[in-house]
Amino acid sequence: MAQGFWKKKMNSRAVFEMFFRKQPFGGGFSVFAGLGTLLDRLQSLSFSFDDIDYLKSLAVFDNDFLDYLREFRFTGSLWAMDEGTIVFPNEPLIRVEGNLIECQLIEGMLLNKINFQSLIATKTARMVLASRGGSNGSSVMEFGLRRAQGPDGALSASRAAYIGGASGTSNVLAGKTFGIPVMGTMAHSWIMAFPSEEEAFRTYAELYPDRTIFLIDTYDTLKSGLVHAISVGRELAAAGKRFGVRLDSGDIHYLSMEVRKRLDEAWLKNAIISVSNDLDESIIKALTDVKAPIDIWGVGTKLVTGGAEGAFNGVYKLAASEDAERRLSARIKFSDNPEKTTNPGVKQVWRVHDEEGFSVADVLSLDPDIIEKGGTYSFWHPQADYRRFIHTVNGIAVPLLKMMLKDGKRTGSEDSLDVIRERVKKGLDSLDHSYKRFLNPHIYKVSISGRLRSLKLELINNYLGEL
Amino acid sequence: MAQGFWKKKMNSRAVFEMFFRKQPFGGGFSVFAGLGTLLDRLQSLSFSFDDIDYLKSLAVFDNDFLDYLREFRFTGSLWAMDEGTIVFPNEPLIRVEGNLIECQLIEGMLLNKINFQSLIATKTARMVLASRGGSNGSSVMEFGLRRAQGPDGALSASRAAYIGGASGTSNVLAGKTFGIPVMGTMAHSWIMAFPSEEEAFRTYAELYPDRTIFLIDTYDTLKSGLVHAISVGRELAAAGKRFGVRLDSGDIHYLSMEVRKRLDEAWLKNAIISVSNDLDESIIKALTDVKAPIDIWGVGTKLVTGGAEGAFNGVYKLAASEDAERRLSARIKFSDNPEKTTNPGVKQVWRVHDEEGFSVADVLSLDPDIIEKGGTYSFWHPQADYRRFIHTVNGIAVPLLKMMLKDGKRTGSEDSLDVIRERVKKGLDSLDHSYKRFLNPHIYKVSISGRLRSLKLELINNYLGEL
Repeated sequence: MAQGFWKKKMNSRAVFEMFFRKQPFGGGFSVFAGLGTLLDRLQSLSFSFDDIDYLKSLAVFDNDFLDYLREFRFTGSLWAMDEGTIVFPNEPLIRVEGNLIECQLIEGMLLNKINFQSLIATKTARMVLASRGGSNGSSVMEFGLRRAQGPDGALSASRAAYIGGASGTSNVLAGKTFGIPVMGTMAHSWIMAFPSEEEAFRTYAELYPDRTIFLIDTYDTLKSGLVHAISVGRELAAAGKRFGVRLDSGDIHYLSMEVRKRLDEAWLKNAIISVSNDLDESIIKALTDVKAPIDIWGVGTKLVTGGAEGAFNGVYKLAASEDAERRLSARIKFSDNPEKTTNPGVKQVWRVHDEEGFSVADVLSLDPDIIEKGGTYSFWHPQADYRRFIHTVNGIAVPLLKMMLKDGKRTGSEDSLDVIRERVKKGLDSLDHSYKRFLNPHIYKVSISGRLRSLKLELINNYLGEL
Repeated sequence: MAQGFWKKKMNSRAVFEMFFRKQPFGGGFSVFAGLGTLLDRLQSLSFSFDDIDYLKSLAVFDNDFLDYLREFRFTGSLWAMDEGTIVFPNEPLIRVEGNLIECQLIEGMLLNKINFQSLIATKTARMVLASRGGSNGSSVMEFGLRRAQGPDGALSASRAAYIGGASGTSNVLAGKTFGIPVMGTMAHSWIMAFPSEEEAFRTYAELYPDRTIFLIDTYDTLKSGLVHAISVGRELAAAGKRFGVRLDSGDIHYLSMEVRKRLDEAWLKNAIISVSNDLDESIIKALTDVKAPIDIWGVGTKLVTGGAEGAFNGVYKLAASEDAERRLSARIKFSDNPEKTTNPGVKQVWRVHDEEGFSVADVLSLDPDIIEKGGTYSFWHPQADYRRFIHTVNGIAVPLLKMMLKDGKRTGSEDSLDVIRERVKKGLDSLDHSYKRFLNPHIYKVSISGRLRSLKLELINNYLGEL
């Protein structure tokens, strides 16, 4: 396609938007993640000598097009929501303006990075929400390397999980790459390598007195593991050290109650209970609902892969392109399915808050229209029928899309992961609990402005008239 | 853990085995993949200066242990099944022998590579099996980049998909890296960039007369896309070129029948019909069952992520370690759940065939015991009860685990992806159709030899006696 556009001299200005159509996991919100990774990559994007040689070997590309690729850099501009923003279907998360070829060449890479990290950040945020019912401000740790989808499926997932609220990762490379807290603990093979479980525990406690979590299910959780953990743990406690135990099999509810009781009876009220074993947000919620005394949730597979839903459904569509007079002109992709008909034109997304700071609705407007506090607006249903509501904005209205790249270069400084992570937390706090429910969540309103609605109807009518 | 073993001078010889416990996708077989990637990585494994600096910054590691890591190379030996072997639960796919630390350090990486590629190769093989009912020897193409789990989730998936039987990929980097056939086609944005669909089709056909697949659903599949594809396609056909159309929405069964009929009426019997739109093996099977006239299946998301099952459940367990006399001694991981009790000792896996070359059963034996043609053996149920069958081997019996690395270096040459892919096909051909069924497949027998059974019972009894 790129060669075709190039040969036909169709490399004029275009605007593409990335959005998604459906919340993953049957949920009511998503977390936008992967932007930092994408911006870094866009700034370094080029074809190496090797790449060009390979493309040449395919015998599909002309030499002059290959010369073009040799010099190729991404020189477009990019607007995006801040990474960590809470997002909803059908609103642009990213808007790219550039020549048609560069906009098109980056599509697969852009979707790959944003789709995966948003999936994992969203999954993690759900688990963190589920864990909040627990005692002691319980926390979620990411342990997913071994069953992640490839090495980067682990590395990117660790980054996204931290954004979504995980406290840390077992992936040391992710620690090194992103500065995320790393944590390790003993595996069954540690214990099996020693003549006895107690000796394995004592050795570990001697080596790492400040970070000992005994894995207590290698032989028998209550009859063996817990007994030895209490015996060695008492020595740690006597030395003023806090320790923990980890449950990795069996009935987590029953075992956590029993273990807590016996730890408390042994005057080890400070000892932490962590659990692992194919957890997801439903299991975490079921356990916090019954007040299982769990402090730390170690989650792996279902966090780093998304579990039963392994893909975020982001798409990237043409919103405007130059017309014969070289002006940007709105484009629509019509579909028999009204939900799949795109919102045309170069757009902004406004998040409208109430007086208390809660998010009320998002509105898509045509750039540069604005939505202001105090103003009264019709917020139209995006599928262009007659549904709408009239709203006087009594809190702040925030434009969510911000320029991140201008002519291929970053316009501002990079947000740290901690800033992004805090943004997720604040975003979720400003969202009514009904949107955060797991079962049949309330659907957050994403509406379109009157002017956008008029443009959309006009383009649909033009299109239907041509058929 | 590694530092603990090192400080305690517990770095003696050990044998670990990688196996999995349950077939993914409710199926009756899996495809072993990722070995080539793993062997390459093991040979280059080391800690960089940067890595060591980062580990030092964590303030958990002593300088002399860091010095040890600085010099670390994987010097162990590794036996594995040939990549592309059809595999079953509870049989070792890989056996690693080395010092305890090196065996332990590679665990996460080994599982990550094998689990993911085996998942995707298996998923693809299922799709290819499902597609075989179709007309014209239909084929499966991998299009998954945009919704893969990160960049490597796409790249490794393309490799594994090719092994599993995909004909090619849309991922050009995978083509470059692995020599896999690459293929591209037009997207909706190509068509939308032109004033008319017909002009978009004609331009593409002029540029790529030998590889034109018209995407016909941008406006209206039957009223617009197909009409223009036939008009431009006739010109291609007149020039002796074969072309195709692609359906990407709507009811694929109805549309494929209608499109085939109208192509045939237009004397374009040679024109290919390809489909895409969130396909998986169930949809492909449903369509081939009703003889939908589809030649090419373009699959993306559900192929490169595994769909609802995003992880292959491989584990890595200690099978033997040095005893006080420095002899390798069998180890068992006992579990209250009999299926989770491991098979102890250093093992070989034998695949026993019948006279016609079909696979009858696999047997785990203690190395170096052998299973021979003509011999009569008791094949015991692995959960150590009294179930067994007595079998006279009347076809060949093949030892599946072969030495791949000796002291950290490859012992033989690397199989090409085409060799591996052919092995998958042959392996599936030698498997009775009842194991390849999607619904309630027959369970292939993985049994244990009499001597292994005795060892297992002895170790279980020892263990229970100690409790």
